[in-house]
Amino acid sequence: MCELYSKPDTLALRRKHIGPSCKVFFAADPIKIVRAQRQYMFDETGEQYLDCINNVAHDVVKAALKQMELLNTNSRFLHDNIVEYARRLAATLPEKLSVCYFTNSGSEANDLALRLARQFRGHQDVITLDHAYHGHLSSLIEISPYKFRKGKDVKKAFVHVAPTPDTYRGKYREDHADPASAYAEEVKEIIEEAHNSGRKIAAFIAESMQSCGGQIIPPAGYFQKVAEYVHRAGGVFIADEVQVGFGRVGKHFWSFQMHGEDFVPDIVTMGKPMGNGHPMACVVTTKEIAEAFSSSGMEYFNTYGGNPVSSAVGLAVLNIIENEDLQGNATRVGDYLTELLNKQKAKHTLIGDIRGIGLFIGIDLVKDRQKRTPATDEAQHVIYKMKEKRVLLSADGPHRNVLKIKPPMCFTEEDAKFMVDKLDEILTVLEEAIGVQSESMISEDAPCRAKLPNEAHSEQLGDGTLDPRENPSPKRNGLCTDKHSLLSKRLKT
Amino acid sequence: MCELYSKPDTLALRRKHIGPSCKVFFAADPIKIVRAQRQYMFDETGEQYLDCINNVAHDVVKAALKQMELLNTNSRFLHDNIVEYARRLAATLPEKLSVCYFTNSGSEANDLALRLARQFRGHQDVITLDHAYHGHLSSLIEISPYKFRKGKDVKKAFVHVAPTPDTYRGKYREDHADPASAYAEEVKEIIEEAHNSGRKIAAFIAESMQSCGGQIIPPAGYFQKVAEYVHRAGGVFIADEVQVGFGRVGKHFWSFQMHGEDFVPDIVTMGKPMGNGHPMACVVTTKEIAEAFSSSGMEYFNTYGGNPVSSAVGLAVLNIIENEDLQGNATRVGDYLTELLNKQKAKHTLIGDIRGIGLFIGIDLVKDRQKRTPATDEAQHVIYKMKEKRVLLSADGPHRNVLKIKPPMCFTEEDAKFMVDKLDEILTVLEEAIGVQSESMISEDAPCRAKLPNEAHSEQLGDGTLDPRENPSPKRNGLCTDKHSLLSKRLKT
Repeated sequence: MCELYSKPDTLALRRKHIGPSCKVFFAADPIKIVRAQRQYMFDETGEQYLDCINNVAHDVVKAALKQMELLNTNSRFLHDNIVEYARRLAATLPEKLSVCYFTNSGSEANDLALRLARQFRGHQDVITLDHAYHGHLSSLIEISPYKFRKGKDVKKAFVHVAPTPDTYRGKYREDHADPASAYAEEVKEIIEEAHNSGRKIAAFIAESMQSCGGQIIPPAGYFQKVAEYVHRAGGVFIADEVQVGFGRVGKHFWSFQMHGEDFVPDIVTMGKPMGNGHPMACVVTTKEIAEAFSSSGMEYFNTYGGNPVSSAVGLAVLNIIENEDLQGNATRVGDYLTELLNKQKAKHTLIGDIRGIGLFIGIDLVKDRQKRTPATDEAQHVIYKMKEKRVLLSADGPHRNVLKIKPPMCFTEEDAKFMVDKLDEILTVLEEAIGVQSESMISEDAPCRAKLPNEAHSEQLGDGTLDPRENPSPKRNGLCTDKHSLLSKRLKT
Repeated sequence: MCELYSKPDTLALRRKHIGPSCKVFFAADPIKIVRAQRQYMFDETGEQYLDCINNVAHDVVKAALKQMELLNTNSRFLHDNIVEYARRLAATLPEKLSVCYFTNSGSEANDLALRLARQFRGHQDVITLDHAYHGHLSSLIEISPYKFRKGKDVKKAFVHVAPTPDTYRGKYREDHADPASAYAEEVKEIIEEAHNSGRKIAAFIAESMQSCGGQIIPPAGYFQKVAEYVHRAGGVFIADEVQVGFGRVGKHFWSFQMHGEDFVPDIVTMGKPMGNGHPMACVVTTKEIAEAFSSSGMEYFNTYGGNPVSSAVGLAVLNIIENEDLQGNATRVGDYLTELLNKQKAKHTLIGDIRGIGLFIGIDLVKDRQKRTPATDEAQHVIYKMKEKRVLLSADGPHRNVLKIKPPMCFTEEDAKFMVDKLDEILTVLEEAIGVQSESMISEDAPCRAKLPNEAHSEQLGDGTLDPRENPSPKRNGLCTDKHSLLSKRLKT
């Protein structure tokens, strides 16, 4: 485990040479990871961490090596790997989704998806969901309320934000007779308003399950209805599977497939786990949309996209998912983990909601179960305490109160048990502290607040931006993520 | 050399599953490459091709493997590789360029460069050069006349196109007293006009040498003057080194450095050869610009950018450039190749201009040396004939008449000699055919023309779009790139 630099030197070099907008996890006390194996990561002292968040890992070293030794070049030459990989990917999808464009990142894929959608009928407008995150490129920040609402950017006229179909904290909840129709109706109204202003809808884009937005699973029937309205308006349905595809939901290979065979998106984007950390991503669409794009006369060329090494890595990932029955594992371990978490919910009032499917699970922490007040600071406290116990979790969603679980697909029942046991310990101590102490006793301490704008709270575990100044928790209770050790003492841990 | 599919099957699968906008080289008779070693590529029959165009190759397999076996994860954990790599990259640049943002592609890098520039002073407008190509993303097509002039897109109001500082075929030529000042003056006038319309300049962006635009080397002093005008307007200078960086020009590591120490861009983007085919790229900027970006409160996170494997690969590439003295090689072989080509120019009237530095060379083919009429069809004919002789070249520029030479950095004098000998043979036969035959004899043949809109001519060797319908050669002489074998007979080859 040879280090090139000591941890302080690594940090100093990072501060000097890496853009300050690039945040590390746990900014107050970042982790230096030097080695990883399946769902475990190891720091420079050999300490083992259980990884519940890096939804990118598989074991594909050999395939990459074999192809690297042979050839790596761009896709302007014929090569078997790219076509074989495209064939295998297409086989996982409904038949009409047959044409692939390979890129290097989910962001590049979503940017291209927008170009395909706009070229299709010449329409320009995009409907996106509130709190959505679709990537870090200019064109994607424009359609990502998760990002543009936090920066100085304002919503562009061509962007229409529909309410997130969140039945726990959204506009229509589980007590509504038909939340799917109600949320879809909102999209329909947006389309009508756009038409009244002379605008035309190019696309509706949504993650099949909203991840950074708070682990939201849309109610059954919602996508079908939205697709109907969007198609009627001449637009296309883009399913963003970058964070939620490749078998994570267990029973299906793609998350959108949970909604039944009568729902087929027009464009699907995929990335992250696709190459086990190797930069690769893809857009898959129909022949009709691909041909419309081609007829514009503008060629698409991506230097690295679909290169022989990337394709070999992608094929290896598909083989591993199949050979190791990772979908079966996602179902088994996911069900077990959800069951354990539901028991925790019965025990801890801080847990307002457990939602998820397969190895995509959200734990929604609340201050008050009736009002469903987001327990933002408590969530931050929990992830720092979990880190002390060597479990890596993140908190996300618009209120940063949802513990996000998206572990590597090889996560085991033992890992699930270990994680839940640690969570139980932390929640027990935390609830005791909150319950027995008044707010004034756990006061906000000056050094911690002073750090807020630049460091504390602003390191985020999702993919986006969370500036504490624009994300005040409804009611600060003095839990300070960067001073967890100090706080811990007060909490008598 | 095991193939998964026969070449026709590979082609058929490609047609079925890969987007038709993704063109292959030599569409009428594409090459299937199964193996490569340094500057040589091998097809499925074992045939060897000399590679004069893939400016991406180095040998880095071992470094990648070593790091892949150990760890690959994202940059939210501390890791020595990313900081060491950033330190090494910064050391190749002027001191004020010290802050790095790692991405997966040159396109992602240029998109981020625009965001940095716009955030810096809140200005929005961008000045770009005519025929420029900066990437395949929506935000980059907008500033790439090479792309948007060919598609259905129109120039946006925030984009200003300055004339390419081309002293061979541009507005001010080598007979002008001071072309550098004259071209820079055009930029100054654009800025004044923008200001008169109440617009503000965020950035001037240019490749340090324009590649797809026709291998254009700006006259000395041009960049300094442009930078002065742009800075005065509150804008920043973005040097796009994606295609021309990493020692290709020989004497300097970065192409912009040819212009002297008194010219330092505010932002430099890099990619392609950076990872020897591994998808990685970077934006380097000043502390001041990085801090302004960070102060917006919007975080920048790129899942794969700067991951431990990419960084290890990048370090290996830097080591190889140094240890194998690839910059020295670029100077030596480049000088030798330019000398050989200048002898060819003396011999062949089809060669209008030889321009280049190091292993970045353009051969500008003309029908008429006085009028400098681009010899578009002849250039296409030449690259197809070169392919028959197992040499891979491309033709680019707005008229697609410039033979573009950007070989792997390990290109040797023997390779240079071999390439020039083949070119000599082809030009000799071609000039004889053109000279002795009237245009009517080499008539345009129907099958070839019928294929034009979809296939023939539209496969391009650069990074962009060239639709023949919008690129009519000034005077077609019946040379048909897709019917080279038929044509060859007429030319008595």
